[in-house]
Amino acid sequence: MTTEAETVSDADLYARVQRDFQHAGLMQHLGAQLISVAPGEVCIRLPFSPHLTQQLGYFHAGATSAIADAAGGLAARSLLPDGQTVLSVEFKINLLAPAQGEAIEATARVLRHGRTLTVAQVDVCALQQGTRKAVALMQQTLIHLPTSHA
Amino acid sequence: MTTEAETVSDADLYARVQRDFQHAGLMQHLGAQLISVAPGEVCIRLPFSPHLTQQLGYFHAGATSAIADAAGGLAARSLLPDGQTVLSVEFKINLLAPAQGEAIEATARVLRHGRTLTVAQVDVCALQQGTRKAVALMQQTLIHLPTSHA
Amino acid sequence: MTTEAETVSDADLYARVQRDFQHAGLMQHLGAQLISVAPGEVCIRLPFSPHLTQQLGYFHAGATSAIADAAGGLAARSLLPDGQTVLSVEFKINLLAPAQGEAIEATARVLRHGRTLTVAQVDVCALQQGTRKAVALMQQTLIHLPTSHA
Amino acid sequence: MTTEAETVSDADLYARVQRDFQHAGLMQHLGAQLISVAPGEVCIRLPFSPHLTQQLGYFHAGATSAIADAAGGLAARSLLPDGQTVLSVEFKINLLAPAQGEAIEATARVLRHGRTLTVAQVDVCALQQGTRKAVALMQQTLIHLPTSHA
Repeated sequence: MTTEAETVSDADLYARVQRDFQHAGLMQHLGAQLISVAPGEVCIRLPFSPHLTQQLGYFHAGATSAIADAAGGLAARSLLPDGQTVLSVEFKINLLAPAQGEAIEATARVLRHGRTLTVAQVDVCALQQGTRKAVALMQQTLIHLPTSHA
Repeated sequence: MTTEAETVSDADLYARVQRDFQHAGLMQHLGAQLISVAPGEVCIRLPFSPHLTQQLGYFHAGATSAIADAAGGLAARSLLPDGQTVLSVEFKINLLAPAQGEAIEATARVLRHGRTLTVAQVDVCALQQGTRKAVALMQQTLIHLPTSHA
Repeated sequence: MTTEAETVSDADLYARVQRDFQHAGLMQHLGAQLISVAPGEVCIRLPFSPHLTQQLGYFHAGATSAIADAAGGLAARSLLPDGQTVLSVEFKINLLAPAQGEAIEATARVLRHGRTLTVAQVDVCALQQGTRKAVALMQQTLIHLPTSHA
Repeated sequence: MTTEAETVSDADLYARVQRDFQHAGLMQHLGAQLISVAPGEVCIRLPFSPHLTQQLGYFHAGATSAIADAAGGLAARSLLPDGQTVLSVEFKINLLAPAQGEAIEATARVLRHGRTLTVAQVDVCALQQGTRKAVALMQQTLIHLPTSHA
């Protein structure tokens, strides 16, 4: 999507995104896993745990949002050179169905990568007994900033 | 705000909301605390921990969103009789400033309590060395449903 | 998408949606055109006019939002039987790029059609000298209600 | 809210905002009126007309959104020096109740005025037989840009 992003090797790209993922304490604490990275696309999986539920035993909307927000941020990050990072400006999420199953997966895709802002869309699916069901959809805006100013 | 809500005692109201809060595994796992409950108003605090951070060491937007979503849900819940609960339909959050400090606090207020849907607004502040700073603002829509159907 | 919707003829479906479109005074006042109707999918076009601009001469975000909201509402309406209608509960729109050109087109698609609520996604493109460019993306929640209660 | 904004006279401030308002063709076409301007706060009124309705005769959500978006943009604009303008990045609006009455009024307030982005909140009320009723609430993000680049 950007010239810069396309010239880094796939391994470099993965390493760069994984570094930010691993530095996010919340992702480790929730048990989230970085599944795949491509330029402008990132997938994060969150296996079910009773630590992640709301009052009825489904995945809490906060858990769903957390991995969706992280996936969008990393998708934006994947298009930026070293020395830059992103912060979420805002996001909106529709919770389409109760999130239940063995895991949920958030797949983010950059829709617009501007000079200052990136807009991403994130689909969240629940994996249940071999089926995938859409459980949430997010639109997210992120701002780029130099790591030194962050 | 509703006749029903106003006729339950304050202690009953707190107990009812606390029950839902305690049944939400994610709230315990993050270390969130239920601070106050009034009809249509709930405050949740989240003390800082390295388990809650994004890549730069601030509170992760996912953590901020989680307590904001929970506070809004409980504020809606506080206006409903026993035997009913709420699910988040959708929310939108603006992250106004990096969330750093000893804790963040989400204060939810019901704006509209209809027959089927409740709309809440949630302010999130960071507490840092005796100051409060607005770090996020959420608008949230919730749907009421009988516990038996949930 | 629903049994009911699939049993009405294409002509009936178009007529039903067109009736609501024509009863919306704002759509006529803006000069919007109903382009296509399928079960759960509706497209509305808005030809450029100086009456539709913001301060720099682009389509005003209010005009973009108006046809996007209308397209989503009609897409939801297309899945409901006579005697029911929809109201927008909320929507969120990202304005991806300045909207300029001969026209903009909003294409709505129902993502989830529940008993009480419908969630739609709406893409808005600008048509400029034979090219299509994405200019906005909306996520929208609508509530169903009987026409008699409306 | 900004030093710059506070040093311009009230008359200059009003003139600056009014200029942008008058250059927005959509505002004239809808019949919107600029009611008041203060640093970071703008109110726009929209008198009822059958040209502004949805299928049931209420104000169309597109009309409500248009004046809310415009009010937020002008509130942001009021804090910027000449030579700069704003574009809406995104907004989210909850339609709290059917908008009916003699007029609707959108009152925008800047919540955060940063170097690059401004976040505004906009309340929309319906005026009906001497009463005011909240009908919508918007959160909006705007980006600043030099007029010359616009």
